[in-house]
Amino acid sequence: MRYSLFAGGKRVRPLLALAAAEAVGGSVEDAVPLACAVEMVHTYSLIHDDLPAMDNDDLRRGKPTCHKVFGEAMAILAGDALLTRAFHLMAEAPGPAVDVARRLEALRILGEAAGTGGLIGGQVEDLESEGRPVTAAALERLHRAKTGALLGACVRGGAVLGGAGDEDLRRLARYAGAIGLAFQVVDDVLDATEDAAQLGKTAGKDRAAGKATYVSVHGIESARGLARGLLAEALEAVAALGERGLLLRELAAQIVERRR
Amino acid sequence: MRYSLFAGGKRVRPLLALAAAEAVGGSVEDAVPLACAVEMVHTYSLIHDDLPAMDNDDLRRGKPTCHKVFGEAMAILAGDALLTRAFHLMAEAPGPAVDVARRLEALRILGEAAGTGGLIGGQVEDLESEGRPVTAAALERLHRAKTGALLGACVRGGAVLGGAGDEDLRRLARYAGAIGLAFQVVDDVLDATEDAAQLGKTAGKDRAAGKATYVSVHGIESARGLARGLLAEALEAVAALGERGLLLRELAAQIVERRR
Repeated sequence: MRYSLFAGGKRVRPLLALAAAEAVGGSVEDAVPLACAVEMVHTYSLIHDDLPAMDNDDLRRGKPTCHKVFGEAMAILAGDALLTRAFHLMAEAPGPAVDVARRLEALRILGEAAGTGGLIGGQVEDLESEGRPVTAAALERLHRAKTGALLGACVRGGAVLGGAGDEDLRRLARYAGAIGLAFQVVDDVLDATEDAAQLGKTAGKDRAAGKATYVSVHGIESARGLARGLLAEALEAVAALGERGLLLRELAAQIVERRR
Repeated sequence: MRYSLFAGGKRVRPLLALAAAEAVGGSVEDAVPLACAVEMVHTYSLIHDDLPAMDNDDLRRGKPTCHKVFGEAMAILAGDALLTRAFHLMAEAPGPAVDVARRLEALRILGEAAGTGGLIGGQVEDLESEGRPVTAAALERLHRAKTGALLGACVRGGAVLGGAGDEDLRRLARYAGAIGLAFQVVDDVLDATEDAAQLGKTAGKDRAAGKATYVSVHGIESARGLARGLLAEALEAVAALGERGLLLRELAAQIVERRR
């Protein structure tokens, strides 16, 4: 659990949760349990995705994958335990006096995003789409589930914990939808253009696995244009927040302009 | 998920949750989300334990194991999804008007029992103890974690949802400790004495794997005596509940006297 959780990583999801709480007028501290939980859920999904029965990957965050170091049985259990700890942590964290109903709602949002309607459903679709032709619409649906749902839960959950009203929740949900998809589009571009040393994980593996990506369906230049369009949408969605939305806007720009 | 969840099983855990809510003066309905959640957590743990990298088992609840039917990747994901859905369900279930703080507390109890301090920690200890000599004290600790923690969470979580006061919570915690351990002692006896057709799962596999069990450490007759002593303790713990504790007392007797 520690090996994979503290192997590095960009911490995009926790940052989004903290930034969202702040953007709606709450405090960053309100969203710390969620920030920890989403990184645990993300890390568990990487550990299980890398298993021999799944993507069978040897390299992650620049280090050997969990099962390469500890064996398959311990890697399965480490993933299970990180997923369990994520929910446990959100239920137990005393933290500052965030309303109990808001904590339960943030937990519900995380559970929905991590389940069959989000992360796991997307992974199932991804496995089933390997080597098959995929339409642009099916590709977007897959990626909104596989990557977008959890990123969206960071933003929406953080906003709920920060005490957001309905109007701010709508703004942040729109922002979350745009950056969630942008994140995956950029991931696909990087997989096709960068090497393993830069990425800290195996490069070019989408193509090798015959996976449908934004690059294979739209081409590299169109995919880059799509990412820029989604960034513009995200920035516009939170423009009305003014100064409070600064961190959210910076994160959106970083997500689209990153190199790994 | 459906294949393994609806493959049968004794439903001991859900029954304990419902009986506990009723025993403290609440309604059975208060604990229905928890009852569903604990069976999902139990089923996920069976699916993952049966994987080739773990116990590599072909038979469960009288049917081929999940990975035998759907492959390893889908079995890993089905387990992940059942675990996720358990917490999601408890966070979203509207149900009757159970206090939000009690729902969060029941969720916390489930998370603690399912994690490294309970179910998963016990499984790690179990894997690491294979083929090694184990003391009676270490064996009890292992089984209290691997089996007792989740059974205890059913009882304590159900009691919390049923609105238990401190005194009833203490009674039910003592009951839960005794029947949790009794359950595993009886499991070990059945593994050594019954055949696969009776059990619905592979028989004699503890001995084949060189696992420490109550039978290998204490012998069959001592193990049976231990189970009877634990039953007496469980019955005594809830004696003060009178009529309200009837279902809990019947379940304790069934756990100790079962044949599968």
